[in-house]
Amino acid sequence: MNTLPLAEPSSVEAAEASLALARELQPICRSITGDGLRETLRILNREVPLTIREVPSGTQVLDWTVPNEWNIRDAYIKNGRGERLVDFQKCSLHVINYSVPVKATMTRGELEPHLHSLPNRPTAIPYKTSYYREAWGFCVTEQQREALGDGPFEVCIDSSLKPGTLTYGELLIPGSRKDEFLVSTHCCHPYMANDNLSGIVLSVQLAKRLLNSQPRLSYRFLFIPGTIGSITWLALNDSSRIRHGLVLACLGDAGGFTYKKTRLGDAVIDRVVQHCLSYSKTPYAVRDFIPYGYDERQYNSPGFKLPVGTLMRSPNGGYAQYHTSDDNLDFITRDALAGSYEILCAIVDVLEHDGAYLNLKPRGEPQLGKRNLYDRAQDDTLALLWVLNLSDGAFSLLDIAERAKLPFTQIRHAAQRLTAAGLLRPLVNHE
Amino acid sequence: MNTLPLAEPSSVEAAEASLALARELQPICRSITGDGLRETLRILNREVPLTIREVPSGTQVLDWTVPNEWNIRDAYIKNGRGERLVDFQKCSLHVINYSVPVKATMTRGELEPHLHSLPNRPTAIPYKTSYYREAWGFCVTEQQREALGDGPFEVCIDSSLKPGTLTYGELLIPGSRKDEFLVSTHCCHPYMANDNLSGIVLSVQLAKRLLNSQPRLSYRFLFIPGTIGSITWLALNDSSRIRHGLVLACLGDAGGFTYKKTRLGDAVIDRVVQHCLSYSKTPYAVRDFIPYGYDERQYNSPGFKLPVGTLMRSPNGGYAQYHTSDDNLDFITRDALAGSYEILCAIVDVLEHDGAYLNLKPRGEPQLGKRNLYDRAQDDTLALLWVLNLSDGAFSLLDIAERAKLPFTQIRHAAQRLTAAGLLRPLVNHE
Amino acid sequence: MNTLPLAEPSSVEAAEASLALARELQPICRSITGDGLRETLRILNREVPLTIREVPSGTQVLDWTVPNEWNIRDAYIKNGRGERLVDFQKCSLHVINYSVPVKATMTRGELEPHLHSLPNRPTAIPYKTSYYREAWGFCVTEQQREALGDGPFEVCIDSSLKPGTLTYGELLIPGSRKDEFLVSTHCCHPYMANDNLSGIVLSVQLAKRLLNSQPRLSYRFLFIPGTIGSITWLALNDSSRIRHGLVLACLGDAGGFTYKKTRLGDAVIDRVVQHCLSYSKTPYAVRDFIPYGYDERQYNSPGFKLPVGTLMRSPNGGYAQYHTSDDNLDFITRDALAGSYEILCAIVDVLEHDGAYLNLKPRGEPQLGKRNLYDRAQDDTLALLWVLNLSDGAFSLLDIAERAKLPFTQIRHAAQRLTAAGLLRPLVNHE
Repeated sequence: MNTLPLAEPSSVEAAEASLALARELQPICRSITGDGLRETLRILNREVPLTIREVPSGTQVLDWTVPNEWNIRDAYIKNGRGERLVDFQKCSLHVINYSVPVKATMTRGELEPHLHSLPNRPTAIPYKTSYYREAWGFCVTEQQREALGDGPFEVCIDSSLKPGTLTYGELLIPGSRKDEFLVSTHCCHPYMANDNLSGIVLSVQLAKRLLNSQPRLSYRFLFIPGTIGSITWLALNDSSRIRHGLVLACLGDAGGFTYKKTRLGDAVIDRVVQHCLSYSKTPYAVRDFIPYGYDERQYNSPGFKLPVGTLMRSPNGGYAQYHTSDDNLDFITRDALAGSYEILCAIVDVLEHDGAYLNLKPRGEPQLGKRNLYDRAQDDTLALLWVLNLSDGAFSLLDIAERAKLPFTQIRHAAQRLTAAGLLRPLVNHE
Repeated sequence: MNTLPLAEPSSVEAAEASLALARELQPICRSITGDGLRETLRILNREVPLTIREVPSGTQVLDWTVPNEWNIRDAYIKNGRGERLVDFQKCSLHVINYSVPVKATMTRGELEPHLHSLPNRPTAIPYKTSYYREAWGFCVTEQQREALGDGPFEVCIDSSLKPGTLTYGELLIPGSRKDEFLVSTHCCHPYMANDNLSGIVLSVQLAKRLLNSQPRLSYRFLFIPGTIGSITWLALNDSSRIRHGLVLACLGDAGGFTYKKTRLGDAVIDRVVQHCLSYSKTPYAVRDFIPYGYDERQYNSPGFKLPVGTLMRSPNGGYAQYHTSDDNLDFITRDALAGSYEILCAIVDVLEHDGAYLNLKPRGEPQLGKRNLYDRAQDDTLALLWVLNLSDGAFSLLDIAERAKLPFTQIRHAAQRLTAAGLLRPLVNHE
Repeated sequence: MNTLPLAEPSSVEAAEASLALARELQPICRSITGDGLRETLRILNREVPLTIREVPSGTQVLDWTVPNEWNIRDAYIKNGRGERLVDFQKCSLHVINYSVPVKATMTRGELEPHLHSLPNRPTAIPYKTSYYREAWGFCVTEQQREALGDGPFEVCIDSSLKPGTLTYGELLIPGSRKDEFLVSTHCCHPYMANDNLSGIVLSVQLAKRLLNSQPRLSYRFLFIPGTIGSITWLALNDSSRIRHGLVLACLGDAGGFTYKKTRLGDAVIDRVVQHCLSYSKTPYAVRDFIPYGYDERQYNSPGFKLPVGTLMRSPNGGYAQYHTSDDNLDFITRDALAGSYEILCAIVDVLEHDGAYLNLKPRGEPQLGKRNLYDRAQDDTLALLWVLNLSDGAFSLLDIAERAKLPFTQIRHAAQRLTAAGLLRPLVNHE
C-alpha cells in the first residue's frame, strides 16, 4: 500500500499557491476557444506537465461541431469627447463572450438592445455569452448604464470569429493500476474567481501532490472549455478506464460544501465524498444528480455513464455573486481553498487505500492482548474489532468505516496494525 | 401514440352528468340481486353499452353460492289508526336489505328486537343487510323509534326471497393491446349517494370518454354487487389479462382523496395513482393494502393477485355519514365529482402513454440549440434533459417523471418533442 | 404444533425462584476458572440437568489458551492492630479477580499502586480483573481508601494461580428438530446481581419451562465464563446447528429493554425479538450490532456468523451501578425479572410456532360466515383475513403479523382456527 505524502504541501501552502495562481490568471480573457484559453493553459503547463491539444474548428464531436475560434483585442463605448465610458481593458466581462466585431457610431437607441446590466445588483457587471448564435453586446453595471447619456457613441468590439482551433489541456498521472480517476474543470470563464479559477487552481495543486507520489489509481486531469470541451474530449479519447470522477468548480467561497451525486447515485465516488464530508468540520449538502450544471452532464450521459460527481462549495446559481463581476478575487479565501484542498486529498486518500481484507483468525476474536493491540484508546480498539469482524471478504475498508461510523483513516490504520500483526491480509494485492 | 380527447367532456360537464344520473338512480332499492339491481343496470345500459349477465341462484362461484333473488314491493309499520309510522316508500333504507317477508300484528315488545337506529346520530337511518342469514327488520331514526308508542303495530314487509338470478353488467372497451385495465364498482347499495352512486356514475363517465377514444389498453368495467359480484365474475370469467385495476367508491364527498394500495404495494397502478395525486391540488392519503374493504379483497386474493387498488375520497367507515341516510345527494358535490373525474382521466392518461424510449444520441447531450429545443421555460428544458439522460431503455416515462420530480404530462410532452426532432424513439411500438 | 405450558410457572413464580437462586449464588466468588465457578455450576445443576465440562489449563482454543486456574481463600489489608481494614470475606469484589498471591507488610506508598476506587462513586467498590496479565490489587470504596492511614499494613491475598481446568455447564433440550436455539449466559462475575446473576437465573427458569415441554426446536443453554468460555465452547463443540441465539445479561434492573441485534441485522431472531418487544408494555431500544460487549462477539465472528443477539435491560456500561458493588441484590427487582421472563417466553413462543401455511381456498375469500368464523371481534376477523390473504407460501406467520401489525399470538390463533376449518394447511410439517 502506497502512502501519499499528505503533509506536502500543507493545505495552507496549497491554498496560498492557489491564490497566487488565480491572481495571475484573472486578467486573461478566457473563452471556449482562442488565445485567452491558450494562454491560460500555457501558464498551467508551467505548473504541471500538460498535453495541450488543438482541435480544428469544424471538427465533428459527437452531436456537436467545434466552433470558430474567437479572439478579442479591445472593445469600448466612447462618448463624443473620446472618453471610454465602457472599457474592455478594465474588465473582460464588459463584452458578451463570443461577440462578433463591431465598429460604428450609434445613438443610445441603437445601442440600447446591446446593453446588459443587473437592476437588482446595480454595481455588478453580468457575465454573458453567445457561443452558438452570432451576436454582440456590452455588459455594464446598472450605474454605468444610467450614466451613459444619449450619445452618439463610438462603439467598438475589436474581435475576430473565424476558423481556428479549440484548445484543451490534459494530464495523465499513471498509477500502478490502469483504472482512472477523472478530475475535470472548466477553463472558459473570464475574470470570475470562484467560477472557476478556484476549480482550476485546486486541480493544479492536487495534480502537483499526485505527481509527487506513486499512486495506485491513474489520475486524469482535464482543463477544458465547458460543455464543448468535455464533448470534444469524449469524442476524441478513450474514456473506458474511468472508474471515478469529479468535476471541480466554485471551491473558493466561504460557503459549506455541495456535493452533487453521479447519475448512478451510489457509485463509489458518491460514497467516498459523502464519507469524507461527514468527517470535515464544514457544513455540507448532498444533492441528487440532475442533468443540468457543468460537464458532469456529458460524463453522465447515457452513452457514457461515467460515475462523475461534482464538488462545489456554493453551487452554480446558488450564490448572489454567481456569473457577475462580484465573483472576484475578494470572493475567494485562503481558508476556503485550504479546506477544499483537504477534502480533495481525503477523497483521494480513501480511493487510494480502500480494499477488502481477510481476517486470518476468523473463528472468534483473536487475542489482541498477547499481541499488544489492546492497550490503546477505546475507539482504536473498536476499529480493530470492526475490521476483524467484517473482514470476511464481503466488506471493503470503506464499507467497514461506514458501518462502524468511524473515519476511514482510523479503519485503515487498524487494518495496517492487524496486517502487521499477521491477523489480516489484503484480499487482492492492493498495490 | 394515441391521444385521448381530454377536453371532451369537460370535468364539470362530466360531474353534472354524474349528478343527474345519481339523482335518477337514488330512489331505486338496490340489493345484491333483484329488480332494483336489474333496473339500475338497465339505466346504465342506456348510457354505455353493457353486457348484462344473469347468474342463476344456486350457482357455485368459488367458495360461495349465488343466493336466492330478493325483491321487495312495500314495507311499513302502521299504528292502530292505519298511519304509516315507518314507510319503505319514503326511504329504501327503512328495511334491512334481504329481509324475509313479514305480515303480522305485534306489540312493541315483539317489534323491538327488529328495530335498528343510531343513538349517536338520532336523525339518520342506518343501512343494514342480512344477505346470508335469514332475518327481517326495520331501520329507523332514533327519533322515529322514540315516537313509535307501544303498539299494537301492523307490520308488513312485502318481499320475496326465492330462486332467481344475480345480475351484473360488464363493458369491455377493446384497445390496441389485449392488456386490460379493470374498473370495478359495486351497485348493490340502496339510497346512498357517496357509497356508491358516486362510483357508479363516474365509472359511466370514464367509460363514455374511453368509448370516444382509441385506447392502447383494453378497459373492462364491472358494475357488480359487492363481494358476491366480484366472486361471481372471477369464478365465471377470465381475469388473466388484467394488468391494472381500480375499485371506485365514495368519490363524491368533499374530502381529500384516499388511495388504498394493491396487495403488491408497488404495482404500476400504485405508482401511477400516487403520481397523479401528488400533482392534484387536493389533499390525499395513501394507505397500505389490508384485506378488508370493497371488492379489491377478492381481486387481491392469493389465487388471483390482481393488482387492483381502491380510489376513494373519504374512505369506507371513515366519515360519520357512512352507511346511513345522511350519505344522500346533498353529501356529494359537483366539484368533488369533477375533481375525481379529473384524477381518473389523469391516471388513464399516464397508463395510456407510459413507455420506455431510446435516446438516439446518447453520447453526450445532443445540441438542443441547433434544433430550436432550448429556448423555452427552464422546466421544459430540464424535462428534455431528463428524458435524454434516462432514456437508455431502463426507464419508462413514469420512472423519469418520478425521478425528475416533474409531472408525467411534462415528461411525456418532452418525449414527444424529442421524438419529433429525431432524438428519441419508442423502445417498443407504443401503439 | 406443540403448545408450551405458558402458564407454568407463572412469570411471578419464575421471578421469585430467580431471586431466591440469585441470593444463594451471590456470595460465591466466581471467576473465569476455579472453585467459585465450579460451585456455581453445581448449584445450577441441582436446578436443571447440566453437563459440566472441565477443560485443562493450556488447552489451545481457537486463538486463545485456557489459562491457569485461579482460586482464592482469603484476602485482607490489616492495620498495625491486626484489624481488617479491607476484608475479602465481606465482599468478593475487594480483590482484583485473578490476583496473584501476596503476603507482605508494606507502607501506604508501597500499597498505593495496588488500590482501586471510584472517586465519582465514593461508596461503591469497583469490579476489576486481570486475567491475562499477572497482577494483584484491592478494590475499595473511596471512603475506605481515605480512612486507611499511612500503614504499615499487613497485606494478604491467599490465592493460587496454577494449572487446573476451566469449567462450564451445558444443557441441550432436544426438540423434534435438530435446529438449535442457543441461550448463552456468562457465569464469571462475582457478587454482582444484574451483571450477571440475572442472566444466569433467568436462563435456569427458561430451561425449566422448556424441560417441561416437547419443543420443536432444540435448545442449547451455555453457562460459561465470559469470552474465554464462549471461545472454548466454540473451539471444542459443533455449532453448525445453531439457527438462532441470545446472550442474556443485565435482565433484572428496572430499566426498559435493550436489544442488540446480530451482525446480520435482520436475522429471524432480530425480527422475533423486536416483534415481541413492540407488544410488551415496557419501553425498549434496539441497537445495531457492534463487535464489543459480551459473548455475542465470539458467536458473531466471521468464522462462525451465528445469528446471536443480546437481550438486556440497562445495557453493559449503560448504568451507573455497572461493574460496582452497587450492582447488588437491591438493584434487581421481582417485577423486572418477571417481565424479562415473559419476553423470553414470548420469543420462544414465536420461534416454536412460526411457519408458512397454504390457503386451500385461495381464489377469492372463502365464505367465513357459513363456517361460523365471522362473528367475532373485528381484530380477530381481520387476523383471519390477513392469514388467508398472505398464505400463498411466501409468507410465514411472523411475516403476516409484521405486515398486519397484529401480535403473533393473534395471527397464530387465526391460523389455528383456519386450519381447524379446513381452509389452511401447514406448508411443511411444523411439528
